Amino acid sequence: MQLGLVGLGKMGFNMRARLRDGGHEVVGYDPRPEVSDVASLEELTEKLPSPRVVWVMVPSGTVTNETIVGLAGVLEKGDLVIDGGNSRYTEDQPHAHLLANKGIGFIDAGVSGGIWGLTEGYGLMVGGSEADVERVMPIFDTLRPPGPREDGFVHAGPVGAGHFAKMVHNGVEYALMTAYAEGYEMLAAEELVQNPQAVYQAWTNGTVVRSWLQQLLAKALKEDPNLAEISGYTEDSGEGRWTVEEAIRLRVPVPGIAASLFARFLSRQDDSPTMKAVSALRNQFGGHAVKRISESG
Amino acid sequence: MQLGLVGLGKMGFNMRARLRDGGHEVVGYDPRPEVSDVASLEELTEKLPSPRVVWVMVPSGTVTNETIVGLAGVLEKGDLVIDGGNSRYTEDQPHAHLLANKGIGFIDAGVSGGIWGLTEGYGLMVGGSEADVERVMPIFDTLRPPGPREDGFVHAGPVGAGHFAKMVHNGVEYALMTAYAEGYEMLAAEELVQNPQAVYQAWTNGTVVRSWLQQLLAKALKEDPNLAEISGYTEDSGEGRWTVEEAIRLRVPVPGIAASLFARFLSRQDDSPTMKAVSALRNQFGGHAVKRISESG
Amino acid sequence: MQLGLVGLGKMGFNMRARLRDGGHEVVGYDPRPEVSDVASLEELTEKLPSPRVVWVMVPSGTVTNETIVGLAGVLEKGDLVIDGGNSRYTEDQPHAHLLANKGIGFIDAGVSGGIWGLTEGYGLMVGGSEADVERVMPIFDTLRPPGPREDGFVHAGPVGAGHFAKMVHNGVEYALMTAYAEGYEMLAAEELVQNPQAVYQAWTNGTVVRSWLQQLLAKALKEDPNLAEISGYTEDSGEGRWTVEEAIRLRVPVPGIAASLFARFLSRQDDSPTMKAVSALRNQFGGHAVKRISESG
Amino acid sequence: MQLGLVGLGKMGFNMRARLRDGGHEVVGYDPRPEVSDVASLEELTEKLPSPRVVWVMVPSGTVTNETIVGLAGVLEKGDLVIDGGNSRYTEDQPHAHLLANKGIGFIDAGVSGGIWGLTEGYGLMVGGSEADVERVMPIFDTLRPPGPREDGFVHAGPVGAGHFAKMVHNGVEYALMTAYAEGYEMLAAEELVQNPQAVYQAWTNGTVVRSWLQQLLAKALKEDPNLAEISGYTEDSGEGRWTVEEAIRLRVPVPGIAASLFARFLSRQDDSPTMKAVSALRNQFGGHAVKRISESG
Repeated sequence: MQLGLVGLGKMGFNMRARLRDGGHEVVGYDPRPEVSDVASLEELTEKLPSPRVVWVMVPSGTVTNETIVGLAGVLEKGDLVIDGGNSRYTEDQPHAHLLANKGIGFIDAGVSGGIWGLTEGYGLMVGGSEADVERVMPIFDTLRPPGPREDGFVHAGPVGAGHFAKMVHNGVEYALMTAYAEGYEMLAAEELVQNPQAVYQAWTNGTVVRSWLQQLLAKALKEDPNLAEISGYTEDSGEGRWTVEEAIRLRVPVPGIAASLFARFLSRQDDSPTMKAVSALRNQFGGHAVKRISESG
Repeated sequence: MQLGLVGLGKMGFNMRARLRDGGHEVVGYDPRPEVSDVASLEELTEKLPSPRVVWVMVPSGTVTNETIVGLAGVLEKGDLVIDGGNSRYTEDQPHAHLLANKGIGFIDAGVSGGIWGLTEGYGLMVGGSEADVERVMPIFDTLRPPGPREDGFVHAGPVGAGHFAKMVHNGVEYALMTAYAEGYEMLAAEELVQNPQAVYQAWTNGTVVRSWLQQLLAKALKEDPNLAEISGYTEDSGEGRWTVEEAIRLRVPVPGIAASLFARFLSRQDDSPTMKAVSALRNQFGGHAVKRISESG
Repeated sequence: MQLGLVGLGKMGFNMRARLRDGGHEVVGYDPRPEVSDVASLEELTEKLPSPRVVWVMVPSGTVTNETIVGLAGVLEKGDLVIDGGNSRYTEDQPHAHLLANKGIGFIDAGVSGGIWGLTEGYGLMVGGSEADVERVMPIFDTLRPPGPREDGFVHAGPVGAGHFAKMVHNGVEYALMTAYAEGYEMLAAEELVQNPQAVYQAWTNGTVVRSWLQQLLAKALKEDPNLAEISGYTEDSGEGRWTVEEAIRLRVPVPGIAASLFARFLSRQDDSPTMKAVSALRNQFGGHAVKRISESG
Repeated sequence: MQLGLVGLGKMGFNMRARLRDGGHEVVGYDPRPEVSDVASLEELTEKLPSPRVVWVMVPSGTVTNETIVGLAGVLEKGDLVIDGGNSRYTEDQPHAHLLANKGIGFIDAGVSGGIWGLTEGYGLMVGGSEADVERVMPIFDTLRPPGPREDGFVHAGPVGAGHFAKMVHNGVEYALMTAYAEGYEMLAAEELVQNPQAVYQAWTNGTVVRSWLQQLLAKALKEDPNLAEISGYTEDSGEGRWTVEEAIRLRVPVPGIAASLFARFLSRQDDSPTMKAVSALRNQFGGHAVKRISESG
């Protein structure tokens, strides 16, 4: 197929390559001329035959919103926009309505796989109408991993369902990472265990806990067995926060996912105000010594 | 090699089969005559050439303890016992000392893989001396999955290290299961998502969260999409509890693993005394209606 | 002072009594004629001298919103509305703007104390301008407990600050209740402890954990030592959910408050979908028996 | 009454004063001659009339154990030892048996109140036989706060029950402190709230969350409104760890208490190995930038 691809960053750049390898004609647009095929959304539109398909792969929030507004201005009735970024699913319906007002279709597509997707294929979770999804199936079939379609692709429901599924995917991912990381800390803390890295390597095959993330942690530990060069400071990218917020809305208890999210918040604090307050309290009632800032220098 | 195998339950029975397939001569003993090759530990001892190797694969705790005491009574200097069950690692040193008093060696071996190990191979984590481990490597090489030895086998350290690593493995497993399960509950709770089972199937390939456990949950959901036939009542088998206890000893924070453990405790309560107390409190200060038992019938 | 009071439910009814006892002239309005002093907001407005003060004490959300819109229609420039209900603090600015368009002032007042406030006084946390707060201080001074003003009253900041502080108050309250309740469950589970109720009674004086909530739990246990008549099913009323949501926005880790919230969600489930999935998983990999619904009858 | 008191540290010193104020004749022993009334346990024994009562108030673990062994060597049939320290309740039965072999009685007494007990009285939870407890009631009546006996004293059950109740008391205390501290962090993080300290002061009267600990946190915040001088580094003293361990033994879910314990562990880590592993993992699959140690200097 022919399609436009807006956003050629870490993800979009690789996806263009995978799509071209799969025989599609991709017109890529990015504000950075050194990677872009065209100079503007207008030029991208002109280069594509009608009815057009444009895949948006830009940062969620303002940039995605502006891009979709921009596309609404240049695309035409019968065209179709796919938001493949990490938009919050609650933004999908407004985007779909905005485009529907001009007769343009919309699909939300959650994309998993990170930098490995180029070679392994991307896990895809999409939301939209049957007709729209069917129309661009050749694109999905190229992006997804080889094998049965249902093993790396799902049409999860109407507009929004794809990003919702991807959000949950990322929430689960947070908790999986914490699980493996807690296990690492325990192995590293116990003197009997002489080589936590070798244990993680051994878990890659035959064990109940084996997984792709588990392999990656084994790889990271092989490169730096004590993680001596890596700080615990960890960003979070929206989906984890949204997952807990949506869990609250749905009244679903998610202690595992929430613990993972809070651990990230904590990792970015120089000192915990909560623990300062606990420490101050102990001092008040028990006369317990507190560590004063002025001492710790 | 020739070896004895004590315990032919769900795990031991399959291991005997895999070992025989791998060319080893296995003399199996189990109190149930219909699966046992010999009638007693004495007969098992007689059937094996000296120096002997005996693998113990019985329930942890009392049964393992009695079996090792029994073997200490019939085996001879130079023999070697491998405890492949789910013993708490703190029991390994006492067992090793008991056997060492008679000149018998000891290895603790954590075994992962469940009912799938027969065909896929078992992930192995072992503790013991270099010499002892080297001596029985042909057995380990048959039990572990094919491929590089370090991907499914680790000699983690001295006696106790194998079971410690296996304990942590199971603690991690608890948290992984909870992570996938929380994700399932969220997908099932959100109306936009029309088929949570299909989402889990789609995660099996290409996604960051793909894993063996993830595939198994997809399989379970294919068999019973709403898990309508399965109760949430969930046992726990020791390793989860021990992991949190050891984490406390090591001062390692494990909120993810602990949350998983507590969720299992809770799943077995008809009503939560904690929440009865919360409910009683709300009623006291706010005059909030409480659900009385007499009403709920 | 003279003031209007809209909403004469569990809280408002008692507040009217306390205000009248304090010498204020209160015109109360409620849709239920048997408790109302007037038949409508219009009549309430007419009965009050200008500039008027009206305290709103109705359920948060739609009802509060409609009441404030209604008051904006009948009040006049120079009047002042106080929202004493449990509104989410994010609704305060919109309400303040709505009223400011007509020259009407606005204060948000978080009110704590439950059914005991009538006799003990209410803890008050308010947001608004210095001038507005000063103007109605006689009302606050009557409602708050006797003693130094700063011990039961705080002007926390501009509009919204009062309800924010009250929301956090309730989040903390959730976690306190869970703390006492977990302690109760442990005492009740341990055979050595012959009378958990007596332990709770003994904690009411001299201990580090003594508090008003602690006394109430001791009282509840005296009335029903095993809480045999109370179900663990527990509602949550908004502030707990909002607290966790705002914590996420502020990137503040709140594992204690979140655990309390999730415990309430769980208390309302007949069976946990999360634990059904965990149980299904265990069955898949380990052949562990699962409790089937069809067996549990 | 006449009694011996072994251990004149922060707690014992104050208890001697309160007992003497209450009319008891106390012979205190401490290795530090400047506070001790006698030079040895032998001298303490000689100074007391038979049958003797000796209260032990020394650090739990080795020191308590050695003290009780020492007392078993000098006391006589019919004497009575009270362990008022923070011993793990599992040590009480062994201590009781050791003493019973010589005809000496034993009571375990959990003591709450910290440095404030001198003036306010101590909350007491005791375990032992009816006869032993009755015999030393005058001592308990002096140490406990004024008012009804059952409000600051409980005979919770046989030997061990007192320390068990005190352990749970401290576990609850951990979770209460975390609850208030999380609330503080949220108030401090929200710009609308201009003075978190004033909010905490206002909560001391009339609110649902008022308590002694709450008053102490308000006091600490008055002294240092931003807790600028206090580090979050927080020790834990045994009871918190034991509470979670016993909860696991009893299969009681304690997410609130466990979260408080883990937060203390975390507060003492320079960097979290768990979060280093999470950060390493993100880098592996997503190419996410990690903060490298070499950059953070």
